[in-house]
Formats: sequence, structure tokens, C-alpha cells
Amino acid sequence: MADRKQLKLGAFMRPISIHTGAWRYPGAWPDANFNFGHIKRLAQTLERGKFDAFFMADHLAVLNMPVQALKRSHTVTSFEPFTLLSALAGATEHIGLVATASTTYDAPYHIARRFASLDHISGGRAGWNIVTTANPDSALNFNLDEHVDYATRYRRAREFYDVVTGLWDSFADDAFIRDVESGIYFDPEKMHVLDHKGEQLSVRGPLNIARPVQGWPVIVQAGASEPGRQLAAETAEVVFAASHTLADGKSFYADVKGRMEKLGRARDELKILPGAFVVVGDTLEEARATRERLDSLVHPDSGLASLSIALGTDATHFDLDAPLPDIPDTNASKTGRANTIALAKREGLTVRQLAQRLGGYSGLQFVGTPQTIADEMEQWLVEEGSDGFNIMFPYLPGGLDDFVDKVIPELQRRGIFRTEYEGKTLRENLGLKRPANRFFPG
Amino acid sequence: MADRKQLKLGAFMRPISIHTGAWRYPGAWPDANFNFGHIKRLAQTLERGKFDAFFMADHLAVLNMPVQALKRSHTVTSFEPFTLLSALAGATEHIGLVATASTTYDAPYHIARRFASLDHISGGRAGWNIVTTANPDSALNFNLDEHVDYATRYRRAREFYDVVTGLWDSFADDAFIRDVESGIYFDPEKMHVLDHKGEQLSVRGPLNIARPVQGWPVIVQAGASEPGRQLAAETAEVVFAASHTLADGKSFYADVKGRMEKLGRARDELKILPGAFVVVGDTLEEARATRERLDSLVHPDSGLASLSIALGTDATHFDLDAPLPDIPDTNASKTGRANTIALAKREGLTVRQLAQRLGGYSGLQFVGTPQTIADEMEQWLVEEGSDGFNIMFPYLPGGLDDFVDKVIPELQRRGIFRTEYEGKTLRENLGLKRPANRFFPG
Repeated sequence: MADRKQLKLGAFMRPISIHTGAWRYPGAWPDANFNFGHIKRLAQTLERGKFDAFFMADHLAVLNMPVQALKRSHTVTSFEPFTLLSALAGATEHIGLVATASTTYDAPYHIARRFASLDHISGGRAGWNIVTTANPDSALNFNLDEHVDYATRYRRAREFYDVVTGLWDSFADDAFIRDVESGIYFDPEKMHVLDHKGEQLSVRGPLNIARPVQGWPVIVQAGASEPGRQLAAETAEVVFAASHTLADGKSFYADVKGRMEKLGRARDELKILPGAFVVVGDTLEEARATRERLDSLVHPDSGLASLSIALGTDATHFDLDAPLPDIPDTNASKTGRANTIALAKREGLTVRQLAQRLGGYSGLQFVGTPQTIADEMEQWLVEEGSDGFNIMFPYLPGGLDDFVDKVIPELQRRGIFRTEYEGKTLRENLGLKRPANRFFPG
Repeated sequence: MADRKQLKLGAFMRPISIHTGAWRYPGAWPDANFNFGHIKRLAQTLERGKFDAFFMADHLAVLNMPVQALKRSHTVTSFEPFTLLSALAGATEHIGLVATASTTYDAPYHIARRFASLDHISGGRAGWNIVTTANPDSALNFNLDEHVDYATRYRRAREFYDVVTGLWDSFADDAFIRDVESGIYFDPEKMHVLDHKGEQLSVRGPLNIARPVQGWPVIVQAGASEPGRQLAAETAEVVFAASHTLADGKSFYADVKGRMEKLGRARDELKILPGAFVVVGDTLEEARATRERLDSLVHPDSGLASLSIALGTDATHFDLDAPLPDIPDTNASKTGRANTIALAKREGLTVRQLAQRLGGYSGLQFVGTPQTIADEMEQWLVEEGSDGFNIMFPYLPGGLDDFVDKVIPELQRRGIFRTEYEGKTLRENLGLKRPANRFFPG
């Protein structure tokens, strides 16, 4: 059993859940967005469940949605992720802390310092989820009139990564001597001035902080596009995939790991973790009923906004209790429309049910008993659909408690998930090596 | 006794102390720059001593000093303050958390979000020390070839303040209804879009976070220059002054409070806290010996670098064991040179001793017994030299323990310092009112 490949589990956390109906679920904490005590309790439960990492996504603007949907959304406002994860560093001991930070709307010196600081403070538990920030409204909050174009954003992200990792290597691991007798605090020969001057960035350095505990905080990405996959294969150590089916997952997995091999990286230097929405019941019927109850808490106004976006057509005048009518072609994403129409047909959903599903959460889901959920996870692991998952809990704290109390023990029983943390750092737990210092390779 | 004016006490913290010899002092923690456990212990001791706030200064570059001094300095590298204070929020309950953040090298949307987050997470204990970043090397780390000029920096700081406080007011205090029954999470009529377009900043808003617990985190500044004083009188609620003598302190106090009155602000809406280096002994002789021992741990190479800067002339060839020679006029700061020459004459210091004093710490100091220190502090308070102090500890943890165990009880006995925190928030403890929301004044 001990030799079996191990699942890696992140927790894709929002204070109330990603599901927009979750704040109305019985026992939920509707005020968790601004209640640190609640979130601390969630982090400590995740740690009890031996999760690898607490992951926070981010938005640099209030989400752009019709006011009828906006006013019903608990996802509009919350803590800035880096602040929250730093506070959690002081309240946890083992779990990795992965914060999202944008390469388009921040400066590499700030990002390098903050993540290095978090890594020192947490004893080597920091991870940086690199995003280029897709939401065009963000630009308006950062001194621009329009969004930075896609290609420029990706080129900047690649350069930004080089600068940040270069800054982390400003000091050799053994630069700080602190010899009280001679009065020498550090060896200046072991300090490197980066002097980066590139296409978009000019950063002298050195960083004013010792090399992080992990060498570099763990590099995380979520891009599924062509340049996103390439950036991941070149630089990422964890990828949050958005595969909706096992077939999608296997294709994505083979593609990204194949790109790594071409670049000379070993396949296990990157862990692929698709987001998975997990609803646990003691029976299959109970789990499905929970999912339906949760979806029923999504107001049709919220659901119709999501449905309109997915279909690329205004769905607000559709008959809520009829099947989905025929949808004309538009220039919106064809994949999104096709997936949505297929979902409605496959499950025989009315417009209301479809809208509520989309308004809640419509990606990869495991809805079942601890056994069926573990079966599905094991299949993904064994068939190389993923190296684990980034779990989304349907409602909090109950959905998380159920996962930790019921699913985790089943995964442990099968020998595919740890019973104790393997190491002290996030890298050690994920089985990732500590990178060498590029300026002081000795 | 209860009616006496109360001292407000901040702690000007560096992990090892501001004094450059402190890391070599017996019992010091030379690795505290990167040891969160040590700093947590310091914060908890400050809380035991009922300090108002834990304050962290900041630098956006490795300090520019000759390598002979640099290699001996423990101040070169440390945690990024905001990360550290966020982590301390999870490990403390009462003390205010004041982090420095630059208006020249950061974006108002980021600053507003982070400080609002810290305020929510800490239950209303955040403060923002607004700086324009004087160190010209910082520019080179932030995509610029040269430093932003003084006037532009100050105009940007004023505009930045308006934007950040405007963003904090994005939501009315009662915007978040969270009515589970109707499914309305917040009232969109109580969300304000800032739409700021000014000389240097363009920020649409709204901020994606609820209004901070304190309305606004406490606004802190340190500027002593003419535009710095004016900015403080207009906007600050705490000022960290650099007065070296009681006479200086009274003059600064009268000036800033006078400016406030002209602007229609009440004098007690701003607390003036000069930095004060405090060395406690059971006798005056013991305190002085501690101070001398500490200075003796400053290597002459470090001290001569500081002395050269203060005199505006190269001091490295002076005879270390002779009195200070005559110094020709230069175009360096005349005040700095005059103060330094006066200090050497007043205390009869050799070049070595003078260099070690300057290399260690040469601002306002109280060196004595708990009684003489309390006498001096009380005199400053009563004669309107200050509203309290931002205390610098000579070495850690010992210098802090002595202050909390010996000086605090003496101040409490005199009725000029709290025995319990007055409130839950930093504002309540400082006696500052919660600002009204400019867009939702009801």
C-alpha cells in the first residue's frame, strides 16, 4: 500500500464556497467573507485532513455582472488573499498557503518580497499562483483605460517569473553568517545584484530578504490556453486544471507532461490538480438531494445571468419551467454553448434547473458516497487524468467537515493519501525538489 | 488619577532593534530577522505591556552603504512589513498593527484592499503609515531609471490618500444584508463607484471588500518637512516625530496642532509620538553602562560610515581615539553636521565613541531608571512635547522585557498609562473617532 501513487489535495477556498447558493444553505456562515475566526477554523480542519494546500483565487475588481445577479452574490467582496494567507500562517502549522498574485497589475519586487516573507514566516509553506488577470475591469482600477492585451500579458508573465525567481536568489543560502565575535552579519560575496533590464521590466535588486526556506515558494498556475500550457510546462510546479471529464483530464495531462519532457523537465516535477466540486452523502440519493437543494438556493436571476453568458444569448425571457429552447448560433464560445446544451439534454433539466446549475457550479463534480467519490478519484489518479485535485466544498463548514471525516479516511484506507505530513514544507509534502540558486549553484 | 492625560505608546519595531550593535548583545536573537516565532513572542510581550501599536518601517531596496558597513548590518534584510503584521494579526488580540506602505511605488487599489483586509482580519487593529519613499535606490527596483522628484511624490501622496480613503468608503456600513430568506446578499444602492480621474491616478472602483471595521484604518505619517507637516495636519491621525529634544518636540507639536486648527480639525484628532530609544537600568550608572556596552558593539567601520554621512565629509581617516577634528563646511545638511559636532563636544566623545553612537542610534533617548524615564516621559506629555512615544528598544528581547516589566508599571502607577485596553480597535485605544463614510454619511 505504501508504494502506491499518492493523491495531492489542494482546497480551492472561498470563505463561503464557490457555489453561489451556499450562503443560504442551512448551517452556513453567511458572514464568513469578513470573519477571520471562521476561516481559521476551516484552515485548521483542512490541516486535520492533511490537505496539501489552502488555495485562494483572486479578482482585482468587483465582478462585472447584472445588478440583479450581483446583489445576490456572496463572491463580490472578500479578503485580499495574501493578507488572509499571511494571517493563516500565524494560525496553522502544516498546510501550504497558495495565494494568487497578478503579473499584470503588480511589481515583481513586491511579489518577490511578499512571497519570500510568507515562506519564512510559515516555515516554508508558501506558493504563488501566477495569474495574468483576465478580467478587463481590473485595468480601470490600475491607472489604465483599457485592458492589457493577451500577448503582452503573457510575455510580461514570463519575464516577471524570471525576475521574481532571480530576486529570490539574491542571497546564497549560506550568506548570513551572523558571527557575533567578528561582527560580520553576512558575506557580501554571497549577495547577487540582478540588474534585470528586459522588454517590460527593469529591476536592479538585490531583494532585501534572505533566500526563502523552500529556495523558491512553489510555483502554481491555472492557464488552460495554448500559451498558458506552455508557460506551465516551462515554469509551473502545480497546475490547477479545469478538466470537466476524465477524458479531458487525460488529454490535458498527457499534453502538459509531454511539453515538460520536450523541455527536459521530469514529469513528476509538476502536479496537475483539476478543480473538483465534491458533495458527500451516506447514500447516492442523499448526495444528489444535497446537490439539488443547494442548486435550488440559487435565485433564477443569478442563474439566468450565468446561463446567458454560457449560451451567448439573452436567456432572461425563456420559460423557466420548460426545456431549453433551440439556441441560434452566436459568436460566443462555441464550447461553452455546446457543453451547456449537452448538459441540459443529458440530465433532462428545465431552464430553471439548468440556470441554477450554472449559477451554482457546473464544472467537474463528484457527487456520491465516500466510496464512489474515492473510486472516481482513484480512477483519475491511476489513469493519469490528474495527480490529485483542488477540492471545492459545496457549502461550509459542513461540506468540508464531511470530506475530512468521511472521504479522507477512505482515501487513506486505500493507501492513496497520506496519514501524516511527509515533511515540513509545502515542497516536501508535494514531493517537489528545492530549486538550486541560479547565481550560487554550489 | 483616572482623569490625567494618557500617554499613547507605539513600539518602533525591528526584529533585532534599530541599534546596529544589538544583534551582538548578550542574549540577543541574531536570527530574528527571519524567525517568526521570536517576533510573535515580542508582539505578545508588547500586548502584555498594553502598547497601542506594533509599528514596522520599511525600505524598498537594500540600504545603500559602503560594503564594509553593509556586511555588519542586521538591518539589510528582513520581512516585508505587511506580511509580518498580517501574520501577527493571527497571533495577537489587542495590539494595533501599523505597516508602512509607499504611495510612490504601489497602487491605491492594492493598498486599500490590503489594509481593509488586515482591518477585518484583526478586528479593527490596522494602521497605514503613509510614506513617499525617500531612498532613491528604490526607483531602480520599480521599473524607473531615476527617483521620482520630491514635489511629484508629495502631490501623488495627497491624491493617493484621497483615492484609498474613497475606496474604503465603497460600501455603506450597512450594505451587507445577507438575508437568507430573500436571497439578497447586499444592497446595490449602498455601493459607490469612485470613478477617480486625477493628475496622477485613475481608479474606477468600487473596492471589492466591505468597509473596514474602523471605517478607515488609522492614518499614520512621519514627515517632518514642510510638505510632510502640512500633509500630516490635513490627513494624519498619528505622527511619528523625530524630535531630538523637548524644545524641538514642543515646537513641532505646536506647529502641527496649530496647522490642524487652521484646517478646522480638533487638536486631539492627531497623536504626536516621537521616536524614543529607551535604556532601562536599576541605577543610572547601570543604564549608562548598558548604553556604552551596546555602542561598543558597533564596529568602527559601520560607525565611520554613519559619521561620514552626518558630517558630509569622509571620516574614515580620522584618528579613532582622538577628539573630533575641525570639519570644513560642505553642502551636506548643516543641521546634521551641527548636531553631530555639538554631541561630540557635549559628551566629550572620541571619534570612535562618536562613530559608534551614530552607527548605533543617535536620536532622542531616555537612559535611566524606571523613575527617571517616567519623569522624562511625563514632562513631555504635560508640557505638550508629545502625546506619547514610539519606543525603540535597545536590544531584544531583554530591552523590551525591561520596559514592560519596569517602566510600564511606573507609568501606570502615575496614572498616565492604561492598565487595560480601553476598547477593541486601535482607534478606540488611541481615542480617535471612527470616520463617517463620505458617500453614505447617514
